Amino acid sequence: MSKLLVFGHQNPDTDTIASAIALTYLLNELSIAAEAVALGKPNAETKYVLDYFRVDQPRIIETASNETDAVVLVDHNEKQQSVSDINEVSIKGVVDHHRIANFETSDPLYYRAEPVGCTATILLKLFKEYEVTIPNHIAGLMLSAIVSDTLLLKSPTCTSEDVRAAEELADIVGVSLDEYGLEMLKAGTDITSKTPEEILNDDAKTFPMGSETVRIGQVNVVDIEDILVQKKDILETMRQETRENDYDLYVLLVTDIIESNSVAIVDGPAYRQFEIAFEKPLQLNTVDLEGVVSRKKQVVPPLNNAFKREN
Amino acid sequence: MSKLLVFGHQNPDTDTIASAIALTYLLNELSIAAEAVALGKPNAETKYVLDYFRVDQPRIIETASNETDAVVLVDHNEKQQSVSDINEVSIKGVVDHHRIANFETSDPLYYRAEPVGCTATILLKLFKEYEVTIPNHIAGLMLSAIVSDTLLLKSPTCTSEDVRAAEELADIVGVSLDEYGLEMLKAGTDITSKTPEEILNDDAKTFPMGSETVRIGQVNVVDIEDILVQKKDILETMRQETRENDYDLYVLLVTDIIESNSVAIVDGPAYRQFEIAFEKPLQLNTVDLEGVVSRKKQVVPPLNNAFKREN
Repeated sequence: MSKLLVFGHQNPDTDTIASAIALTYLLNELSIAAEAVALGKPNAETKYVLDYFRVDQPRIIETASNETDAVVLVDHNEKQQSVSDINEVSIKGVVDHHRIANFETSDPLYYRAEPVGCTATILLKLFKEYEVTIPNHIAGLMLSAIVSDTLLLKSPTCTSEDVRAAEELADIVGVSLDEYGLEMLKAGTDITSKTPEEILNDDAKTFPMGSETVRIGQVNVVDIEDILVQKKDILETMRQETRENDYDLYVLLVTDIIESNSVAIVDGPAYRQFEIAFEKPLQLNTVDLEGVVSRKKQVVPPLNNAFKREN
Repeated sequence: MSKLLVFGHQNPDTDTIASAIALTYLLNELSIAAEAVALGKPNAETKYVLDYFRVDQPRIIETASNETDAVVLVDHNEKQQSVSDINEVSIKGVVDHHRIANFETSDPLYYRAEPVGCTATILLKLFKEYEVTIPNHIAGLMLSAIVSDTLLLKSPTCTSEDVRAAEELADIVGVSLDEYGLEMLKAGTDITSKTPEEILNDDAKTFPMGSETVRIGQVNVVDIEDILVQKKDILETMRQETRENDYDLYVLLVTDIIESNSVAIVDGPAYRQFEIAFEKPLQLNTVDLEGVVSRKKQVVPPLNNAFKREN
């Protein structure tokens, strides 16, 4: 077997980058040759985290099969979120916290998923099970992943295991969870230099639902108005991407990380399914979603159900 | 959430029944309401095991959604091997050691798979991780599952983890691994009272491969001739089932548990794919497969590759 490439999903977020690096560290400590790579550039929040803990950005790959035949996935499993040539390589392992779909292997593999808020929370268990000490910088990345995925433990995806893991990791790193966490989240909300394309795509995922294709982006902000003033340009970009990619529904979730609320900007031929899912009419392509901060837990399941009922 | 139903695959074998009972015991100890059930009657080997350790046969269910909305799968994940109404219930967890295919959920779940020889080997880890003591009768079932799935540690699916787990469980039970193991395997090879339908179906699974459907049964014997003398009747039954179910390929693996060899009886329109997969011509619908004892590791992957190449 050639060296394992370990990577998370496209449009990498902090959990995807941090978990690839942390799992690779664990594998290397267990004498398994592995390299953490990424399917895109780190976002502003992740850059802040890597700088803070003085860890190099992982090498970015376009394809995997040109350099290995064996990969390990973190923080995702669905093929359309993975490397473009995922069907050409053998998936040896997965560590993830999402639903399982569009995933298939020919051979048995190591698959570890738990319904917790963050991949890094599962990795902390693995470090303990394999009795590998977590160095300071790896603990820092894992802590940052939990803060990012749970919006500083406030998302409904956050479980008591995530809270315990974050506290334990903050102890190892020697930082205040609240202070470091807020500072880190704020570092990720600077959209002043971002184009509409970047706002839409920096944290976007594509989901097959029923027979249709749904694109859902999310952007964290400290003031939702900063995005809403650009609504016209954002909608224009959404429409162009919808035409180019045959999306049936395009959603941008604009999330206020201080107040834990979101506004959704919605477009696409299947926009009615969004109204059905949330039992709310769109007003000029937007709708307030009070208390909604989690794409995975509060947006994907109701949309999935709406599309299922339609079929 | 209503009570979890915990079950293994159709045509239950010893690992499927034992692992459902063992995982249910673990869940109950963790104060999670769960009941082990089965998708069919235990086979002769499993009956011997249940009698030996004085454990009741699990209740047999036809459907799950009439009594619960939440299930846990052991020893399988593919829908066509599961309960008939698997799409009507929510899969909360899986503990398995097979490839992942035809599996999909709407929500995140607990999924634990490792490429080891037996589900019970993974369960032994879970008992340790959750610090639950394994009582004698549960250890006996888990030991039997490992003996069954690895043909007393001789199958190529058997890993060093299975060997260690079997030795540890035999110590807990207080039996000789070799003596108990051989006695148990022999108890499962009595085919004198079996019809061709039972020989074919008692341990059979259906696999989608490419766009085709492959049925693979397996029967353990101490003398392969006991089956070959019935070849005419078995082939006739294969052909009838192939017509009724639109199988493209039907394989019966007849495995000598003493010598660790198999003879395959093969029929169906796609029989050429079998010859391609094993690079051997069939002779009157049979072929010797020296050293082959594992359907999962030595039969499914080469067949899968043959069907993939065809498409």
